[in-house]
Amino acid sequence: MTTHGGDIYGRASDILDFSSNTNFLGLPDGVKIALIDNIDSYDKYPDPASTALKAAIAEYHNIPSSYIVCGAGAADLIYRIVLAVQAKMRDDAEQARLNGNRYGYVGAASFLAPTFSEYEDAHQLLDSCCEYHYLSPDNGFKLDKPLDNELVFICNPNNPTGRLTELDIIKQSAKTSDLLVVDECFMDFVPDSTGYSMVPYLKDYPKAIVLRAFTKTYAMAGLRLGYCLCSNSELVQRIERTLQPWSVSTPATVAGIAALKETEYLRKTHELIPQNRMMLINGLRALGLTVYDSDTNYILFRYKAGLKELLLEHGILIRSCANFRGLDDTYYRAVVSSEANNRQLISAMEIIIANSQS
Amino acid sequence: MTTHGGDIYGRASDILDFSSNTNFLGLPDGVKIALIDNIDSYDKYPDPASTALKAAIAEYHNIPSSYIVCGAGAADLIYRIVLAVQAKMRDDAEQARLNGNRYGYVGAASFLAPTFSEYEDAHQLLDSCCEYHYLSPDNGFKLDKPLDNELVFICNPNNPTGRLTELDIIKQSAKTSDLLVVDECFMDFVPDSTGYSMVPYLKDYPKAIVLRAFTKTYAMAGLRLGYCLCSNSELVQRIERTLQPWSVSTPATVAGIAALKETEYLRKTHELIPQNRMMLINGLRALGLTVYDSDTNYILFRYKAGLKELLLEHGILIRSCANFRGLDDTYYRAVVSSEANNRQLISAMEIIIANSQS
Repeated sequence: MTTHGGDIYGRASDILDFSSNTNFLGLPDGVKIALIDNIDSYDKYPDPASTALKAAIAEYHNIPSSYIVCGAGAADLIYRIVLAVQAKMRDDAEQARLNGNRYGYVGAASFLAPTFSEYEDAHQLLDSCCEYHYLSPDNGFKLDKPLDNELVFICNPNNPTGRLTELDIIKQSAKTSDLLVVDECFMDFVPDSTGYSMVPYLKDYPKAIVLRAFTKTYAMAGLRLGYCLCSNSELVQRIERTLQPWSVSTPATVAGIAALKETEYLRKTHELIPQNRMMLINGLRALGLTVYDSDTNYILFRYKAGLKELLLEHGILIRSCANFRGLDDTYYRAVVSSEANNRQLISAMEIIIANSQS
Repeated sequence: MTTHGGDIYGRASDILDFSSNTNFLGLPDGVKIALIDNIDSYDKYPDPASTALKAAIAEYHNIPSSYIVCGAGAADLIYRIVLAVQAKMRDDAEQARLNGNRYGYVGAASFLAPTFSEYEDAHQLLDSCCEYHYLSPDNGFKLDKPLDNELVFICNPNNPTGRLTELDIIKQSAKTSDLLVVDECFMDFVPDSTGYSMVPYLKDYPKAIVLRAFTKTYAMAGLRLGYCLCSNSELVQRIERTLQPWSVSTPATVAGIAALKETEYLRKTHELIPQNRMMLINGLRALGLTVYDSDTNYILFRYKAGLKELLLEHGILIRSCANFRGLDDTYYRAVVSSEANNRQLISAMEIIIANSQS
């Protein structure tokens, strides 16, 4: 199990958490009200088909309900997609054997480096080979060419770099690969995602799966809710059938339906994230730090090894990126937070830098 | 995906649900209060190690925390156990290959018939063979001999038969099998489970895993919370590492900790379940039905095919057992409910039987 951000357990309760990259606006009030209003339904099994939730998601994205599989967060769906691929490999191999052919599909996968580690952790279930496309700090970690493999994972915007990949590159990867998973869990923080999101093009790209989550956008990390979208109905059914039938809890269902009505919350997010990100980036750059451009609600920056521990002395938790493939212990990720919180991080950095020079 | 009980979605909202076998007392008030009191923590990621919840479970069962893996319901854990077995098979096979040996472990499993279908659904991930131990209606579906295989699943009390298996048989199965999973999700409905539960003996049976859930005992089906217990630390770690790190949501965590304090609720459960079960069994037997003895909070009985549809006309939903291996469309399962609800089921059956004879 890899260490992720948000590891606040066993720490002081008043810690300022910049390590978890969820929306700093917190759980919307409308979601809290829905959670309380529906409490009498938590004794019943959730609807395994998630019919009501899928209808709300379908309307939100203007896509058919049949494209949707809901799960307990994007991480749950990553594992289910990989297991669905495994099941298909097995069936195809059996079919090839029946036809007297040798079947060569082994599930080789390509990953960005650095990127979210759960893709690779899940892919280990397949016991097949991994290829890494190392992104370069020289161009700010932009992915500038399509990836081509049996299974390709692209996180867009990428985690922990915060950079968007152009839609042309995504589309080309979807054409040449056997299966492309585009993780758009941070796409909602891009004020205008037209020209970046694959969601409107799924119909024409049946080999693409888009992953989305409520976790980051609506600060619902504790509730565990995500979904994936795909126009290939066979694949959708395989993912749907994988693992337990009740993966989406009733609180998650209720919260998800309520969250999709939060248009004002989303408008505020689109207004504040770029504004507060600019403030945070400029503040840290003014201290002489290397801070990479970001298109979403967190930033990647560099400092000497050991900064996480130094900031903890100031009551601030950031994400060390030492365990991201392709980065090292001089890279750090911090979420874009409120003005007051950002100011606290910048001030703490100022003190740390001053102390290091004295 | 198999159809289970509790499939109330798309049905009239005032339906009387006897198909889901959760505690008829409903979600305890203490759990509801905890869910509301902790709502401000749902924006944060859950603790992947479930430290606080494990401490509460360890205290409840008087076992070490290190025996526990928490999951999103027992069904989640069934899949994780099977995937952990698969990972071990793969590692052992690799080790055998390195040692120049041929490795024969293929994960052959034994299941009761009838029993909960998710064991077999999960085992299909392994692509290995299944053996069925058919229980007989002649002795009320009692399991009367140990099972012996690489992987054995015993549900105790069994679902949908409601029957307990003697501890000696469980212990012998744990000795002879490579791995025994005892699903005790309905054990809390047995007023005195001493002499039935494997929990106190786990230390001496490292090849046994006990599955438990909050789902049934505390009517928490919508919240998704279960756990498994095992004294083999290597196996515990494998199960812990399988699938996503945040499988237990924050509401489930909060609810679980609160539920374990509900001693009065549990006392009431132990008082009412045997009492109301007797009433339901006697009421149906008085109508001439074959009703099997039960040790837990649901009963198995027989009637002509099509009873589910007939009862739906009376606003009552029961579980047809037609899709349980070893049963057919003349077997039905009904939960033990309140006196008033039980009376409604008995009355509806009386009318249906009268109509069938007129």
